[in-house]
Amino acid sequence: MDKIKVGILGCTGAVGQKFITLLEGHPFFEISEIAASERSSGQKYKDRVNWIETTPLPENIADMVIKECSGDLDAKILFSALDSSVAGSVETEMANKGYAVVSNSKNHRMDDNVPLLIPELNGDHFALIDLQQSKKASGGYIVTNPNCATVVLAITLYPLHKEFGIESVIVTTMQAISGAGYPGVASLDIMGNLIPHIGGGEEEKLETEPLKILGALENNRIKFADFKISAAVNRVPVRDGHTVSVSVKLKNKASKEAILKAFDDVQTYDLPFSPKKLIHYYDTPGRPRPLTDVNTENGMAITIGNLRECSVLDWKYTALGHNTIRGAAGAAILNAEYMVKNNLL
Amino acid sequence: MDKIKVGILGCTGAVGQKFITLLEGHPFFEISEIAASERSSGQKYKDRVNWIETTPLPENIADMVIKECSGDLDAKILFSALDSSVAGSVETEMANKGYAVVSNSKNHRMDDNVPLLIPELNGDHFALIDLQQSKKASGGYIVTNPNCATVVLAITLYPLHKEFGIESVIVTTMQAISGAGYPGVASLDIMGNLIPHIGGGEEEKLETEPLKILGALENNRIKFADFKISAAVNRVPVRDGHTVSVSVKLKNKASKEAILKAFDDVQTYDLPFSPKKLIHYYDTPGRPRPLTDVNTENGMAITIGNLRECSVLDWKYTALGHNTIRGAAGAAILNAEYMVKNNLL
Amino acid sequence: MDKIKVGILGCTGAVGQKFITLLEGHPFFEISEIAASERSSGQKYKDRVNWIETTPLPENIADMVIKECSGDLDAKILFSALDSSVAGSVETEMANKGYAVVSNSKNHRMDDNVPLLIPELNGDHFALIDLQQSKKASGGYIVTNPNCATVVLAITLYPLHKEFGIESVIVTTMQAISGAGYPGVASLDIMGNLIPHIGGGEEEKLETEPLKILGALENNRIKFADFKISAAVNRVPVRDGHTVSVSVKLKNKASKEAILKAFDDVQTYDLPFSPKKLIHYYDTPGRPRPLTDVNTENGMAITIGNLRECSVLDWKYTALGHNTIRGAAGAAILNAEYMVKNNLL
Amino acid sequence: MDKIKVGILGCTGAVGQKFITLLEGHPFFEISEIAASERSSGQKYKDRVNWIETTPLPENIADMVIKECSGDLDAKILFSALDSSVAGSVETEMANKGYAVVSNSKNHRMDDNVPLLIPELNGDHFALIDLQQSKKASGGYIVTNPNCATVVLAITLYPLHKEFGIESVIVTTMQAISGAGYPGVASLDIMGNLIPHIGGGEEEKLETEPLKILGALENNRIKFADFKISAAVNRVPVRDGHTVSVSVKLKNKASKEAILKAFDDVQTYDLPFSPKKLIHYYDTPGRPRPLTDVNTENGMAITIGNLRECSVLDWKYTALGHNTIRGAAGAAILNAEYMVKNNLL
Repeated sequence: MDKIKVGILGCTGAVGQKFITLLEGHPFFEISEIAASERSSGQKYKDRVNWIETTPLPENIADMVIKECSGDLDAKILFSALDSSVAGSVETEMANKGYAVVSNSKNHRMDDNVPLLIPELNGDHFALIDLQQSKKASGGYIVTNPNCATVVLAITLYPLHKEFGIESVIVTTMQAISGAGYPGVASLDIMGNLIPHIGGGEEEKLETEPLKILGALENNRIKFADFKISAAVNRVPVRDGHTVSVSVKLKNKASKEAILKAFDDVQTYDLPFSPKKLIHYYDTPGRPRPLTDVNTENGMAITIGNLRECSVLDWKYTALGHNTIRGAAGAAILNAEYMVKNNLL
Repeated sequence: MDKIKVGILGCTGAVGQKFITLLEGHPFFEISEIAASERSSGQKYKDRVNWIETTPLPENIADMVIKECSGDLDAKILFSALDSSVAGSVETEMANKGYAVVSNSKNHRMDDNVPLLIPELNGDHFALIDLQQSKKASGGYIVTNPNCATVVLAITLYPLHKEFGIESVIVTTMQAISGAGYPGVASLDIMGNLIPHIGGGEEEKLETEPLKILGALENNRIKFADFKISAAVNRVPVRDGHTVSVSVKLKNKASKEAILKAFDDVQTYDLPFSPKKLIHYYDTPGRPRPLTDVNTENGMAITIGNLRECSVLDWKYTALGHNTIRGAAGAAILNAEYMVKNNLL
Repeated sequence: MDKIKVGILGCTGAVGQKFITLLEGHPFFEISEIAASERSSGQKYKDRVNWIETTPLPENIADMVIKECSGDLDAKILFSALDSSVAGSVETEMANKGYAVVSNSKNHRMDDNVPLLIPELNGDHFALIDLQQSKKASGGYIVTNPNCATVVLAITLYPLHKEFGIESVIVTTMQAISGAGYPGVASLDIMGNLIPHIGGGEEEKLETEPLKILGALENNRIKFADFKISAAVNRVPVRDGHTVSVSVKLKNKASKEAILKAFDDVQTYDLPFSPKKLIHYYDTPGRPRPLTDVNTENGMAITIGNLRECSVLDWKYTALGHNTIRGAAGAAILNAEYMVKNNLL
Repeated sequence: MDKIKVGILGCTGAVGQKFITLLEGHPFFEISEIAASERSSGQKYKDRVNWIETTPLPENIADMVIKECSGDLDAKILFSALDSSVAGSVETEMANKGYAVVSNSKNHRMDDNVPLLIPELNGDHFALIDLQQSKKASGGYIVTNPNCATVVLAITLYPLHKEFGIESVIVTTMQAISGAGYPGVASLDIMGNLIPHIGGGEEEKLETEPLKILGALENNRIKFADFKISAAVNRVPVRDGHTVSVSVKLKNKASKEAILKAFDDVQTYDLPFSPKKLIHYYDTPGRPRPLTDVNTENGMAITIGNLRECSVLDWKYTALGHNTIRGAAGAAILNAEYMVKNNLL
């Protein structure tokens, strides 16, 4: 098949660069446009970007000229890595113009008609796009993926909720610096240190987004999952990989074996960015840990370890996911792949 | 007054070095003996130690000759920084010989007649020493301080339990590398990484030690506090300072103001190693953090921040303490100071 | 004696904070004014500063109101921690108004009539101030201390040049992140990484400043020292402490013993910020290293190790100094102490 | 062609693991034997190894049984990652038995009849193997690759020496922790720190090995290159990648353009582990840096930047190479590939 033209909104930032890196050689998509703020537009990408990826800047992108985000872009899909200060209005505008906006930004995640997607968990939520006004008018619409820490938590809660029902969750996160973008966290603040706080409502996102993701589509609305999450977030001096320490209370009794089986049984898809197995469980203490495990299945799988009984709630475990791949650019690309496969464009 | 002669058991290790550093110029104590395993005995300290403290090795200690741990030592108090593989029997032997053994090791912490002390919380538990056989025979006895992460947790739970009653606690720790001694954690394992596991039963210590510390002395026995603690421990690339993320359910309703007042009201003593204020509360987000706050009151105070409601239990907060000072050598020295002040020698 | 009133220009930045920390309880000086850019002026210090020091913000400073840098300030001495983008003109203006400006900024360092000082090395260069126009008119003048890496290099070259004559020097630096101020280096750039470049002409400073410092005052002019320095600079993930790897060719033969004696013999002063011994030599391999040695003599001494023959030039060694103390705020304070002691105010 | 059977001596250590990782799916070689010390032999690899690579342990290796290093091994080539305490005798023994020993250990590097190889530089040195006694008797022989820091230095010196002649070199290294193996450097020693010393004669290796590598084969002997190298080595908190800061004096004048052309013109081979281009030059300041550039051409290329005039010698630059790939396991594999291609087995 011919490759589908895609554009990157917010192409110079950390997530924008990750989109460019991950899309190199993609079987479905080719980058036809890169866009950023007015300040950058009109310049060659290589003259404007401070490239922080650890693989080289692809040569075909290096010389592309940056466009403005709200201009006419020769693309079918727009991956949005825009800062939340501008993402809200730009994404709406571009959906109205007829583009399929696949956003990593937080602005529209909780909108009623916008699906908040982890395709392996709630692919049926894509149906919401038909309710978006822009879809009817121009064919354009917005879909979103969750916050980078939410993804790790939600994927691990999904099989528990499906099989046993969740009553409540307490989660403490240890999040990587790449989650803060570039320049992001000052080295004087984080080297040999940790910060028990992340701005931008990070705890609230963790406490609410999973309830929408695990919610049920009923009568064209998402009925949020009905349990409580309490989150405490920390920034730690790790480059890539958000680790979460989770305690969970279940509605129905579950054995360790039953839980491991539930982790094992989550479906995946035959798509380029789909991991073969979504959850990898480590049966050895001290795993998963970011450096060793974050790239499992190219950063698209979640790793879990330390499953053991919790004397206060029922079970506790450690989980890890790649925050800029599974938790950001890779998540959006998987959403777009799902859209292609299911003829949603 | 004449200074009291003290010996250091396990003088070459990380905690042994911290004892030597902290006791320099101490108003009550002077180091008269340093002891280690047979392998080191007979040698000058400076020829045997791999000094890792960031202040210079005191000159008067540098040339002292290392004795064997179980020999006749010219000291009244023995601070034990022994490895748990030998601490159990050596400490018993030295208590039987008449020494006051002030131990940082885990071996005797949970013994019925051995107090597990944080003097500001349970100074009355010192009474247990009268029940030790060695005390009656030779005047010798053993007292202990808690695990380095337990100290942080227990100090913060104490005012809550005293004022409101605790029903249950969930805690996730982020612990510094200095807690693992030297050489301890390999740099390839921890630099830019974290490890969701600490050996030696760390989680169990956190789940049980606070219940003894907060227990009541009734009829010459400690009646353990009656609540549940569930712990998840992590090693993080921080040099000094254990951070804990705590959620707690209380028996009686408490307002934020009442909790802050309870934190504020914990007594302290007029002793050299006693902080003026045991708990310092930060009202700004992102605090406490190890690099900035771990040395509060010379590392003997605990810092707390982020007190906020928990949607699953009642309240949650972040706390931090210096693991090798308040959580090890400094804790033992404070115990010994309390013993001097209260004529327990 | 009554304490001398001093002001801090650029009080909110990293060096400004270091001035405030180091001047607490100083026997000669009291901070009477704090000043910053127009944006901050009129506000309380505590409301404007992002305090990054690891000791608490002194309470008497917390509530002081920030003034504008070029206003009328109730102070005799002004310590300047201004950014180089503004330091040039502001310092000149304040010297013209009659203040003794003790600057850490680079702008006036190479001016003919401005001494570039390391008092133990070139105290006689203070005589240059009499040539400054402002001195004659208002009594005001400017003195400067060197770049933070230059200090380490120049102090170690001084005894070699004095005793044996230097012909040439090759130096590679490994510089701490605190040298870049706050927020300074992005954690994504430096954590687990190093950067072989430091902006702002760092290599040029290292290649020229020592020649002025070690120059001779002849006929009211500094005759620069007559040797070549080649520098290569690197930023490394160390918090405090610039390490330099030096190779040096001498005009006259020198034995290892003679060099060590020369290091040993550098004079010091009886001043609060003067180290008892300026150069500490370590005779063990692997020293000096930043974490262990940077605070030698409160960060005002330089440590050297690894002195050995160089097969290309003559000798090579490693040296270390505290970049924000001996290399910045502490250096300026020592300059001011010297001025007080020598009645230069 | 049928794959050639290879064995790994010292299979459990850091370099041994790197061999296993790099050889997975190799077009020429298949691992048929893994061997280690007596302590490990007889056990399954997965039960004995502490896997520290960041990609998963290959499944076919996980269940292989570890043999003893000096036993009969079903392999043609033995890659040796043995510790220098045992490598000397074991490698000789195995060469005598008829194996082609491709060693990363230092023991035989400077032996007269053993080539010290960087194939792109001195492939003709392979001829030395014919002089080894074992070759005549059994067909077995030993070849070696250089020390991990030497590789970076020697590759950058080669074009300079070939084109312009080198007179002298001063090099300061900043070496990664993975160069010290596992557990290697203690985190308390290196996190936020640097160590100006590396044991095992590291400086001497850097000062002598390049002279053999760049030496000329004359009358069946290597005539060492005739210039001086002075080295100063440092360990820095970087995971992978040795950076060197080099100053060099040339016999003949060279322009910057001529040097860049010389860097550019180094030959490479059409072999699986051969980089397409051996030296990549960066024309932007602040490069190369380990995190971003160490994996250039899968870690088999050397990156250089900052080429500029040196006021003491002639030119200076920064270079970087992957210490466990180009500087260890990858280097040995390239040697073996060259042997296959040139029918040296």
